[in-house]
Amino acid sequence: MSYRAPVDDIAFILRSVVPLAPVAATERFAEASEDTVAAVLTEAGRLATEALAPLNRGSDLTPARLENGAVRSSPGFAEGFRAIAEGGWVGLSANPDHGGAGLPQTLNVAVGEMLAGACLSLQLNPLLTQGQIEALEHHASDELKAIYLPKLISGEWNGTMNLTEPGAGSDVGALTTRAERADDGTYRITGQKIFITWGDSDVNDNTCHAVLARLPDGGPGTRGISLFMVPKHIPDDNGRPGVGNSLRVVSLEHKMGIHGSPTCVMSYEGATGWLIGEEHKGMAAMFTMMNNARLAVGMQGVAVGEAALQHAAAYAADRVQFVPIIRHADVRRMLATGRAEVFAARAIGLACAQALDLAAATGDDDCTARAAFLTPIAKAYGTDVGCRVADMGVQVHGGMGFIEETGAAQYLRDVRITPIYEGTNGIQAMDLVGRKMMDGGDMAFRLIDEVLDGAKSAQAALPDLATAVWDAAETLRDATSALLESGQQDRFAGAVPYLTAFARVLGAHFHLIAAQAGDDSRKALARIFVTRILPRNAGDLAEARAGTAELEAVPDAAFAGHA
Amino acid sequence: MSYRAPVDDIAFILRSVVPLAPVAATERFAEASEDTVAAVLTEAGRLATEALAPLNRGSDLTPARLENGAVRSSPGFAEGFRAIAEGGWVGLSANPDHGGAGLPQTLNVAVGEMLAGACLSLQLNPLLTQGQIEALEHHASDELKAIYLPKLISGEWNGTMNLTEPGAGSDVGALTTRAERADDGTYRITGQKIFITWGDSDVNDNTCHAVLARLPDGGPGTRGISLFMVPKHIPDDNGRPGVGNSLRVVSLEHKMGIHGSPTCVMSYEGATGWLIGEEHKGMAAMFTMMNNARLAVGMQGVAVGEAALQHAAAYAADRVQFVPIIRHADVRRMLATGRAEVFAARAIGLACAQALDLAAATGDDDCTARAAFLTPIAKAYGTDVGCRVADMGVQVHGGMGFIEETGAAQYLRDVRITPIYEGTNGIQAMDLVGRKMMDGGDMAFRLIDEVLDGAKSAQAALPDLATAVWDAAETLRDATSALLESGQQDRFAGAVPYLTAFARVLGAHFHLIAAQAGDDSRKALARIFVTRILPRNAGDLAEARAGTAELEAVPDAAFAGHA
Repeated sequence: MSYRAPVDDIAFILRSVVPLAPVAATERFAEASEDTVAAVLTEAGRLATEALAPLNRGSDLTPARLENGAVRSSPGFAEGFRAIAEGGWVGLSANPDHGGAGLPQTLNVAVGEMLAGACLSLQLNPLLTQGQIEALEHHASDELKAIYLPKLISGEWNGTMNLTEPGAGSDVGALTTRAERADDGTYRITGQKIFITWGDSDVNDNTCHAVLARLPDGGPGTRGISLFMVPKHIPDDNGRPGVGNSLRVVSLEHKMGIHGSPTCVMSYEGATGWLIGEEHKGMAAMFTMMNNARLAVGMQGVAVGEAALQHAAAYAADRVQFVPIIRHADVRRMLATGRAEVFAARAIGLACAQALDLAAATGDDDCTARAAFLTPIAKAYGTDVGCRVADMGVQVHGGMGFIEETGAAQYLRDVRITPIYEGTNGIQAMDLVGRKMMDGGDMAFRLIDEVLDGAKSAQAALPDLATAVWDAAETLRDATSALLESGQQDRFAGAVPYLTAFARVLGAHFHLIAAQAGDDSRKALARIFVTRILPRNAGDLAEARAGTAELEAVPDAAFAGHA
Repeated sequence: MSYRAPVDDIAFILRSVVPLAPVAATERFAEASEDTVAAVLTEAGRLATEALAPLNRGSDLTPARLENGAVRSSPGFAEGFRAIAEGGWVGLSANPDHGGAGLPQTLNVAVGEMLAGACLSLQLNPLLTQGQIEALEHHASDELKAIYLPKLISGEWNGTMNLTEPGAGSDVGALTTRAERADDGTYRITGQKIFITWGDSDVNDNTCHAVLARLPDGGPGTRGISLFMVPKHIPDDNGRPGVGNSLRVVSLEHKMGIHGSPTCVMSYEGATGWLIGEEHKGMAAMFTMMNNARLAVGMQGVAVGEAALQHAAAYAADRVQFVPIIRHADVRRMLATGRAEVFAARAIGLACAQALDLAAATGDDDCTARAAFLTPIAKAYGTDVGCRVADMGVQVHGGMGFIEETGAAQYLRDVRITPIYEGTNGIQAMDLVGRKMMDGGDMAFRLIDEVLDGAKSAQAALPDLATAVWDAAETLRDATSALLESGQQDRFAGAVPYLTAFARVLGAHFHLIAAQAGDDSRKALARIFVTRILPRNAGDLAEARAGTAELEAVPDAAFAGHA
C-alpha cells in the first residue's frame, strides 16, 4: 500500500468548503480558473503518488549523511527533487517577474501537502526555499532579487532559514552570531547556527542561507538583529555558483525521524553576506519566511496524518482477526475520527491560505488579520492532528505497528518534529492569545460570528448538528471573553487548550458546510466530528480558564520526583 | 540528569492512599510490615537508580542482536540482570516453597515500576519470567514446579510467553502451532511464533518457553488450545540445562523502541514440550500469565512516564529562554498535568495490585472481581499516560527533543509498545465493557459508590474538589447505565473512551485522598487533576455514548482517501 495524494478531497474543499472562486475572481489570480486548479492538483498529485512516495521508506533507512563536509542525500532524492523543480512546483506562487507561476498560495499549500504526504524529508527542501523566496520578494534589494530569485524559483539553488543557536531558540533575541560591515558594502558573518534544515544539499547547485546576525551597533534583543543572504558559493558575474564562502557544515543531527532531511550544525567563519532589507530590521523579513513556513508546516501535519491514515486503513482492510479489523468497532472509531480530524485540519489550513491570497490580491486589512489569526491555529492544530493520527495508525497496526518494516512507526517518528519546528505549538498558542488578540479579540469574535452564521444556515438541513456547532461557538465566545479579561500569565497558561478548542469549532464549521455540499459519507464524517470530537472542547476550555495559580503552587521539586 | 526511582511517592501512596496495611494484616502477608516495605522500596530504588538507569541509553544505541542463532544482549545487561537476580527481585512475590520471598504483589508491582523506569528493555526479562512463575504455581504439576520454579525464581532461567503467530494476534484461537503426543508422556511442538520477548537470553542460563499449541483432537478456536513448557535446553537429571531442544530463534525484529529487548521470531521444529495444566485448557493458564503481565505493563507505562517527566523537568529547570523554561506557564502546565496523571495512574495500578493481594490472602470473591475489573483500566490508562507524558517530555525539550542524543525521544519510542502488547488498549477496553461487566455492572457501580463516599468524606476539607469529583462520578454512573443498556457493537465502539473516563474518576478519587493526607503540593496536584484533567471526561463520555451507527455510515473507501 502506498500513498495516494488526496486530490479529490482537496478539490472538494476548494470547490465547496473554502472556495477558491473569490480568489480566482481577483485580477491578481485571474489565471486560477477551475480548469487550471484541477490540472495543477492532478499533476501535483501524480508527482507525489508516483515519483515521491516511493522514496519515503528508503530515506528513513538510508539517512542523509555528511561526507567530507558535504551532504549526501538519501537514495533517489536527486531524481525526486529534479521532478519537483522541473514541474515548476518550487515557484508555483512566486512572482512571474522572476520565473514564478504567480498562482495562489492556496494552491501552493495544497500542493505542498501532497508532496509532504509523499515524502516529508524531501519536501522540506522546497518548503524552506519557498519561504526564502517570499522573504526576498518582500524585503530584498532589486539586485539581490535579480541574482537569487530566478535560481531559487527554478530549484537550481535552495534556501535555508538560520535562526536557532544553541542558546537561542524560542528566544531568538539571545543570538550571538555577529555581522561586521566590510568596505565593499557586504558583511562578514561569524557564528554557529543549529537545526538548519537542508543546510547543505546535493540535489541543488547552491545553498543560500538567510542568516540572522547582530551588527556591532545592533541593540540587544530582537530589535538589533539583521538578516543576511550568505550563499555557500558566491555567485559569479554570470550568476553561477562561484568561489566557496567561509562557511561549513559541522555535523548532522541524529534525529528521531525525517532521516532524509539533513539537519545541519552550520559554522560561519567570516562568511560574506549581503543585507536583506534594512539593518537591525531582520526580524521583519524573518517573520515573512516564518509565517509562510508555519502554515506550510501545519499542512505537513495534515499530510502525514493523511498518509498514516491511508496506510492504517489499508492494513485494517487486509488484516483478519475474526473479521477484517476494519470491521472492529474500535478500529473503525480510530479511523473515522482520524479521517474527520484530517479533514478539519486541511480545511483550516486552506482557509488560512485563502485569506493570505485575498490579502495579497486586494490589500484588505481584514484578510491580512484573518490570515494572521488563522496561521498559529493551522500550524498547531494541523501538526497535533498529524501526530494523533500517526499515533493511531501505529495502534491500528497492533504489534506490527511497532515493527519498523511496516512503515507505520516512521510516520509517527517523522511527524513528531512538526509540533516543534517553526515555533513550538506552545509558541503558536501564545502568539494567538497574545499578539493576535491585541485587537481586543475582534478577529476571534468575527470568526465565531461566521461559525454562528454557518450554523444558522445549516439549521434547516442538519438541525442537531447545527445546534451543537452553535452551542460550541457560543461557549467559545464566553471562553474568549474570559481569556481577554485575564492576566498575561493566566492567558498563557490556557493558550494551548484554547487554541485547540478554537480549531475544533472551526473544524466543525467546515464539516457542517461539507455535509451540506457533499454525499452521505461527508454527512457521516461531519456527525462524527460534531458528536465525538467537538465535545472535547469541554475539557480544553476548562483548562483554558484554569489560570496559572495552581501551576505555581506545585513546587519545582515535585516535577522531578516527589519529596 | 538520570532517573531517580520514585520511592517516596510510592511509599506515600502505600501509606496513605492505597494503604498496604490491610494486606499486611492478613496471615499470608504478615511479613509485609512497615519496616519491611520501607526497606524493600529503598533497596529496589537504589538498584534502579544506580545499577539499571545507567544502562538505558546504551541499550538504545547498541540493540540486542542475533549472532549464530543466539541473542547477544546490550552492554551491561548481564551485570544489570545479575543485580536483579541476586537481589531476589524476580521472586519477590513468588511462593516461598520454591525460593520466593512471598511478599505482596503490591510491592512487586511497585518494584517493577522502578526497574522499568530505569531500563524498560531489561525489566522485560524478569517481568515475563514472573508471569510464567505465577502460571506454573497455579497450573503446573508438582514435577514441573520442582524443576522450573527454583530456577525461574532465582533468575538463573528466564520465562517467555508464546501466543502470537503471524495470523493470530488478538484472535489467539486462530493459531496453527501443533502439538503431538509422544510415547513418553511429553509432546512434540511444531510451529512458528512471533513477538517473543526475550525469546533467547545471554543473561540467563536457559530460556523456558510457555507455548500455546493445538493437539490433533483439540477443537477449533481458543477452547482447543493447550499450554506447554518448552525449554531451550532440556533439564538433565540434576536439573541443569542439558541437551538442546529442537527450537531456534529465526530473527529479531527491528523495532521503534525497546532496542535492548530482543523480540524474537521463534521456530519450534518438533521440540519437546511438557504439558502445563490440562490438555485443551491452556488458555486458563495463559490468562494467569497475561493478567499478571497486563498490570505489570500498565506500571511500565507509569514507569516511563515518571522517567520522561523527571527528564523533562530537569531540562526545563536548566534551559533558559528569557527565564528558565520551567517558569513558562505552558511548560509548567505540561509538567504539572503530567505529574498529576502519573500519580493517578500509579495509584490505580497499586489499587489493582492491592485487590489481587487481598484476593490471594482471603479468597474473597469481591476482591478477585475488583482486581479483574481494575486490570484493564490499570493497563490501558497507565500506558496511555506513559505515552502522553513521554510525548510531552519531547515537546518540553523543543528542538532538542527530536535529537536522539537528548534521550527524550527514546522514552517516547520505548513506551509506545506498551499500549500494544499484552492485549492492545482496545482489547483491554472491550474486556472491561464485555467480560468485566457481565456482572450487570455490579463492580463498576461499587467502585463508583466508593468514589462518591470518598467525595462525601472530603466535602468538609475540600468542598469544591469534592463536589467536582462527586459530579464526575454521578455522570460516570449514568454513562455506565447507558452502556449496559446498549448493544454489543455500540458498547465496543464506546469502550476505549469509557475506560479512559472511568480511570479519570478513579484518579480523581485517589488525588482527593492524597490531598487530604498530604502537603500543599499534593493539594495543588489534586486541584490540577480535578480542574484540568477530569473535565476531559465530557468529551470521552460523549464518544462512549455515540454508538456505532455513524461509524458504519462512513464507507471503507473514505478512510483510504475520499472518492
